[in-house]
Amino acid sequence: MSDAKIRRPRAETPKGFRDYFGTEVTTRKAMLDKIAEVYHRYGFDPLETSAVETVESLGKFLPDVDRPNEGVFAWQDEDTDWLALRYDLTAPLARVAAQYRNDLPSPYRRYAMGPVWRNEKPGPGRFRQFYQCDADTVGSGSVAADAEICAMLADALEAAGIERGDYVVKVNNRKVLNGILDNATDRVMNEDPIQGNSDVIKRAIDVGKRALHSIADDILRTLDKFDKVGIHGVVELLTDGRRDASGAFIPGLNVPPIAVEGLVKFLLAKSETNTQTIANLRLAVGNSKVGAEGVDELEQIAALLAAQGYGPDRIRIDPSVVRGLGYYTGPVYEAELTFQITDEKGRPRNFGSVAGGGRYDDLVKRFTGQAVPATGVSIGVDRLLAALHAKGRISADNTGPVVVTVMDRDRMADYMAMVGELRSAGIRAETYLGNPKNFGNQLKYADKRNSPIAVIQGGNEAESGTVILKDLILGAKIAQNATLEEWKDRPAQDTVLRGDLVAAVRRMLDQG
Amino acid sequence: MSDAKIRRPRAETPKGFRDYFGTEVTTRKAMLDKIAEVYHRYGFDPLETSAVETVESLGKFLPDVDRPNEGVFAWQDEDTDWLALRYDLTAPLARVAAQYRNDLPSPYRRYAMGPVWRNEKPGPGRFRQFYQCDADTVGSGSVAADAEICAMLADALEAAGIERGDYVVKVNNRKVLNGILDNATDRVMNEDPIQGNSDVIKRAIDVGKRALHSIADDILRTLDKFDKVGIHGVVELLTDGRRDASGAFIPGLNVPPIAVEGLVKFLLAKSETNTQTIANLRLAVGNSKVGAEGVDELEQIAALLAAQGYGPDRIRIDPSVVRGLGYYTGPVYEAELTFQITDEKGRPRNFGSVAGGGRYDDLVKRFTGQAVPATGVSIGVDRLLAALHAKGRISADNTGPVVVTVMDRDRMADYMAMVGELRSAGIRAETYLGNPKNFGNQLKYADKRNSPIAVIQGGNEAESGTVILKDLILGAKIAQNATLEEWKDRPAQDTVLRGDLVAAVRRMLDQG
Repeated sequence: MSDAKIRRPRAETPKGFRDYFGTEVTTRKAMLDKIAEVYHRYGFDPLETSAVETVESLGKFLPDVDRPNEGVFAWQDEDTDWLALRYDLTAPLARVAAQYRNDLPSPYRRYAMGPVWRNEKPGPGRFRQFYQCDADTVGSGSVAADAEICAMLADALEAAGIERGDYVVKVNNRKVLNGILDNATDRVMNEDPIQGNSDVIKRAIDVGKRALHSIADDILRTLDKFDKVGIHGVVELLTDGRRDASGAFIPGLNVPPIAVEGLVKFLLAKSETNTQTIANLRLAVGNSKVGAEGVDELEQIAALLAAQGYGPDRIRIDPSVVRGLGYYTGPVYEAELTFQITDEKGRPRNFGSVAGGGRYDDLVKRFTGQAVPATGVSIGVDRLLAALHAKGRISADNTGPVVVTVMDRDRMADYMAMVGELRSAGIRAETYLGNPKNFGNQLKYADKRNSPIAVIQGGNEAESGTVILKDLILGAKIAQNATLEEWKDRPAQDTVLRGDLVAAVRRMLDQG
Repeated sequence: MSDAKIRRPRAETPKGFRDYFGTEVTTRKAMLDKIAEVYHRYGFDPLETSAVETVESLGKFLPDVDRPNEGVFAWQDEDTDWLALRYDLTAPLARVAAQYRNDLPSPYRRYAMGPVWRNEKPGPGRFRQFYQCDADTVGSGSVAADAEICAMLADALEAAGIERGDYVVKVNNRKVLNGILDNATDRVMNEDPIQGNSDVIKRAIDVGKRALHSIADDILRTLDKFDKVGIHGVVELLTDGRRDASGAFIPGLNVPPIAVEGLVKFLLAKSETNTQTIANLRLAVGNSKVGAEGVDELEQIAALLAAQGYGPDRIRIDPSVVRGLGYYTGPVYEAELTFQITDEKGRPRNFGSVAGGGRYDDLVKRFTGQAVPATGVSIGVDRLLAALHAKGRISADNTGPVVVTVMDRDRMADYMAMVGELRSAGIRAETYLGNPKNFGNQLKYADKRNSPIAVIQGGNEAESGTVILKDLILGAKIAQNATLEEWKDRPAQDTVLRGDLVAAVRRMLDQG
């Protein structure tokens, strides 16, 4: 094989991955720094686990020799353990909470920020590596922990740059839904009581409840369509089925009418005030014990938040938030951005959710056998960044460095001295390090760097002890509209004494 | 299989990996932030590539179905590409420089900070995931680029907290070593000239040179032992071999005496001033063209640095720095910390190297066929952190939050209101979220959290509109030495009006 035939590797980001340049890195970092500051103030400590976990400890994904990497990126380590990249920040927290349970404070408040990996088919805007930003409290069963996370989430969003009024944290509770399903069964039984042996009746009721709960996930999926199909559509889907706009028929769930009534009350419980919403929910759960417990929890959360000044303008009890109810065991919360953006078809739509979380109680149990209550939130880093971009809240300074051009290759030391002075004064600066022969290339370079000023010193200037400062920002503005009167008193180029370099550059930057 | 027999997963960090808690995360972040600020001021832009690369693009490690993950963590993606975790930050830069060559400015200055992964046998202090912090200039063949990296490295070390005088950046050049090897061959030929056909002679000389260069790596390894075995030991190892302290015999390299003479001159060239060092090196390389080029480059680097005020107290030409010469193609540099620490056996020793780099010119060639010059540095993040710890330069604030204790479970809203006020005032604070029954546990918790103040409000205090502030830092000091006169006027506990909570807490924190 001749040298020329050696196949060169492709210079490509792997499929589904991406690279971040310049301000893409710094704007995300600035946002996460602000959020971390809030988390810190709330007493949360950072935790940074390794990117790699044993597949055994990740749990959800079991090793399989033929296809070990379903959902995660996994490989076998030295013919023994299967290792994998973490797919979220909660699984590593579970491992850490179990591993260090004797050393960590309890409750343990921790936050984590970093990339996670998903072995999924990449799609537009769907990447196989992305950032998560989580905060969780492990070891507290108190609803005060849930309330705290909600307050912290509101503060974090504001710190990141989302203004009050542009977001709302919605709180719901899985127990309320469970209560409604229980209550529905009870009411079915009351309307049409089973005659006979009380033991048989008890068992029948139990079977009825379990039957309803077993389709809870289907019910949740249906309730989640409220925004799209309205309350009438939800009722159709819960009962006999529905024909959609395209004419296709979606079969119904055959939920008994009394249960449907409870679910409708649940969905429509949201009111102007948390107090009224809670009263509505209390009606909806009827005599269900777990339902009452759920409503009590929401009431306590609302009270705890009110005591800290978080009213329904920021955090609101809202039973129509159904997403997450299938996963969590108690209170769930979701941060929604309420301002509108225009979608790809030019239609206005709400920005939607940027964070979600809730209570889950089996975090550590897999490892230790001991149930440990936990509650936490995950902020969608890319979503929140997109929101900040949409609101023009990204104050990314993408101003490039002052570029000291090279007119005379032999006087490189002079140019380096200039750049050294500028840097010592805290001004971002660089000398042109490419081939200096073509001066036009140097100005093109300065342009590509988004440089505000080019510093030029040829032989004449060197002799007279001066330098030329070219105001590239002003130059670009003048080039855009040469007739603009406002620029006439401001030359786009200035000759200053070499000794005044730093002061003159600073002056020009301040004008810019 | 009964439920009880289900094997629980082990809660363990995978072998060779580790977790970072609290200040371990924040101190590293603070250090990297300070370094990033310097890099930014020098005009370098951040780049964050994905953790995952194709094995093909990483290059050094070829896919092999039986054992694909030699040195890297690798796996096959969807039966096609082999993917792997990056093992450094240079290979991804090479890929990016090739992939985006039409869009990136040239020269391209970039910095990168993040974890890299090595599939190696873990050892004490050797981890399979660790941070790197790199800065490189791609597309400049000018030694000004090398000089700039050296100056930036010095500034970065100082920004991180290493004081001037506690470090030195040593600069050497691979070309000088090449020149010495060439020159040695020439001199052997001159001393013992080959008679006959000039073509044969030329070829003989060429073979001689190549023979010496072919053992260049062995020679480098030997020169690197200078610190340990001294100049006499190095000469023995270069020639006939050496018997070490244990009596074991290490065979020599049989380098011709004239070459040894050159290598000794090289090793001992370091002088008080860069000027003298350079003069010594010029003698050592004799008539070698590449050697003279190498010395010229060092002279230019010294001049460019001097022009910016970087004298040999910070950056110094030092040919005894041999590490890296085998890898790089031109100037190499290494930052050494010059202060002493005591090793595990209580002996003083120099802290040693914390960063290194140099010029390498085949970065992009693998991908495009086109040679692109590049130079860059990598800071050993863990080493530098260890150095800052050793010098007591880690100002990690590991003060925990103010802990508002829970005396009365029913008044949780009051406690949350207190904590809310403290947080709004920017004070790190939390309520105790565990089971409040045992008050001792709450104080133990505050202790574990390294809390400065516990806030207590029982029924009596609530009635009288007061709160008790317990100064836990002072309390600990008093407990350590109860007789200390200096504490007598400062009570470790204070009762203040509820309305004065924030102000009183702040006062106590300021005293602490």
